[in-house]
Amino acid sequence: MKGIWKYKDLMDLPTNLPPFSLGEGDTPLIQSKNIGPEMGMTNLYFKLETANPSGSYKDRFAAIAIAEILNKKSKICLATTSGNTGAALAAYSAAAGLPCKIAIVEGAPEGKLKQMRAYGAKLFMIKGFGISSEISERVFDKLAKLAVQYHTRIQVSAFKYCPIGMKGVQSISFELAEDMPEAKNIFVPAGGGGLALAVARGFHLWRQRFPGFEVPRVHCVQPEGNNTIAGNLRLGLDYAQPVTDAVTKISGLQVANVIDGNDTLKACRDTKGNGYLVTDKKVFECQRLLAEKEGIFAEPAGAVSLAGWLEAVRSGELKPEDKAVCIVTGNGFKDPPSIEDLINMNPVQYLEDEESMDAYFGVE
Amino acid sequence: MKGIWKYKDLMDLPTNLPPFSLGEGDTPLIQSKNIGPEMGMTNLYFKLETANPSGSYKDRFAAIAIAEILNKKSKICLATTSGNTGAALAAYSAAAGLPCKIAIVEGAPEGKLKQMRAYGAKLFMIKGFGISSEISERVFDKLAKLAVQYHTRIQVSAFKYCPIGMKGVQSISFELAEDMPEAKNIFVPAGGGGLALAVARGFHLWRQRFPGFEVPRVHCVQPEGNNTIAGNLRLGLDYAQPVTDAVTKISGLQVANVIDGNDTLKACRDTKGNGYLVTDKKVFECQRLLAEKEGIFAEPAGAVSLAGWLEAVRSGELKPEDKAVCIVTGNGFKDPPSIEDLINMNPVQYLEDEESMDAYFGVE
Repeated sequence: MKGIWKYKDLMDLPTNLPPFSLGEGDTPLIQSKNIGPEMGMTNLYFKLETANPSGSYKDRFAAIAIAEILNKKSKICLATTSGNTGAALAAYSAAAGLPCKIAIVEGAPEGKLKQMRAYGAKLFMIKGFGISSEISERVFDKLAKLAVQYHTRIQVSAFKYCPIGMKGVQSISFELAEDMPEAKNIFVPAGGGGLALAVARGFHLWRQRFPGFEVPRVHCVQPEGNNTIAGNLRLGLDYAQPVTDAVTKISGLQVANVIDGNDTLKACRDTKGNGYLVTDKKVFECQRLLAEKEGIFAEPAGAVSLAGWLEAVRSGELKPEDKAVCIVTGNGFKDPPSIEDLINMNPVQYLEDEESMDAYFGVE
Repeated sequence: MKGIWKYKDLMDLPTNLPPFSLGEGDTPLIQSKNIGPEMGMTNLYFKLETANPSGSYKDRFAAIAIAEILNKKSKICLATTSGNTGAALAAYSAAAGLPCKIAIVEGAPEGKLKQMRAYGAKLFMIKGFGISSEISERVFDKLAKLAVQYHTRIQVSAFKYCPIGMKGVQSISFELAEDMPEAKNIFVPAGGGGLALAVARGFHLWRQRFPGFEVPRVHCVQPEGNNTIAGNLRLGLDYAQPVTDAVTKISGLQVANVIDGNDTLKACRDTKGNGYLVTDKKVFECQRLLAEKEGIFAEPAGAVSLAGWLEAVRSGELKPEDKAVCIVTGNGFKDPPSIEDLINMNPVQYLEDEESMDAYFGVE
């Protein structure tokens, strides 16, 4: 068996859960070819979650979540996401023959919705949802009632709401532990914190199974404009905190509420992981570095881990010999506007004739 | 070692070629969940080349091609493609620290160029290139001269021009032979025919190494509007033929010249493979089927193999028990306009309030 299901026992899933797969997991782990070496750091690696079937690590969640729905014989997949979770659920629902209905906040960017619609998911946008807190609450209540009627749950990629599905995400750690047990620093982007929590828990599960394994430090990296976990982790506090307004522009990491935050903070600290805060500007720069220096096409959220690694190097908290892995969470095609920004400075050059090619190539 | 480089010996590469990798290969092979079963065909599988680092099987070519450039200590990657080969070469060049310069035909669609530009490749469009045959010839001559000056070759994903790089594509067959040696029908999309030729050659190399292995039938599928190989293969003729004008709208498969065609036809016939011609309409329908019935997000060219499989079933040439694999060559994000067509029929529904949700869900 390939992919995440070979770890079925380790993930601690309901024993009767039938494997359901679109080829998620077994993602590449590749060594930095330029960014690390240029800084004298030869031990930087990237875990390319971009290579999952729908283009992000959320496929590890969706595979288990949809398997659970099938197992419970529910007849629908219900969700409220306009991001990568929605695309993943839409893909796996399509393959499972389940209708997938997704409540979208008013004003959600069209680009993010296209992949879900391509898989045939039914999207509905409710006036005021995500804008008025009163309306949002009423919509959630209504969704909760519909979920009960359909004998299902609302799919959210957080342990707080969907602990079974999130167990699938732990498989990232199992793969890292197998492929590179000597990597001692894992940099993980965080919005609500579910990914970092799953990664930390995954390593603990691996150590339970293989007692000689040394759990690496799981570092939580957040944009400054959504500092719910990373700042307090760094300060030694033992709780996460909501922000009034998630002002970061990094799509997918705007999660103002705590959700899994307290557990994430504790789990990262248990691994001796630290918190890193990075500016949006640095994240967009890292997206460009990944593309131009490593050939890795990532969405901005996927470049957050590298921004955290750079900060750890700058501050001296990471030594040149320290082996580190940055998790690149999602594919560049997920966020077309960010690609426009990326390529603005690299236009197509128009040449009048083939003779102009010498000058263009700088040939004497 | 993971990916294509574990087959280095089998690929018959120059022995001193240093592995260069972005995590290409090891792509998922998944069973059809709906399309096959709904037709009583339970043995349909998909090989998801969409999961490669830049989103297409061309990464298997680029990894070897760039390794060869590095090995020869050339200082540049030169190419003339506006499609997936360009994106793959741009990615691997970026990682290799090589400038990548790509001559683009006049009028090439902007969307196709974005991924190359994101990786930092330098694109230049020459007036009349690809439109006037006279200008095109002059541009090619000029490029050939530049290639000599730079001690390199112009990168084209065809055995005729780049036999070393194309050997990397043979790894698809090695993976299939390992994962599912009992699959006896492989459906392969063809433009110039390089992919089908690589797949057929790969299986023959596998049989040389493992004499008990039975080479599967490699079927060549082409859009009717680019019938250079498939029609003659079916007719029993022993040559490919150019078309005056490749009128198919399937991006990436518009290759009017023969290029590898004669070798492709012969290699497919040696495997007892057949030729299948499919309409563009059927291909776009298959793109939709893959998304909505299988959760597979493919570009139109990636759905051509399924269109061929459907034709083989319809004609009775494939029996229900015959195990078949369709190679899904590229990711849906490669061709944004085709996604627009796909989702036009599935708009976002706007609801006035949460009470409207009952009616929307069809709850009494």
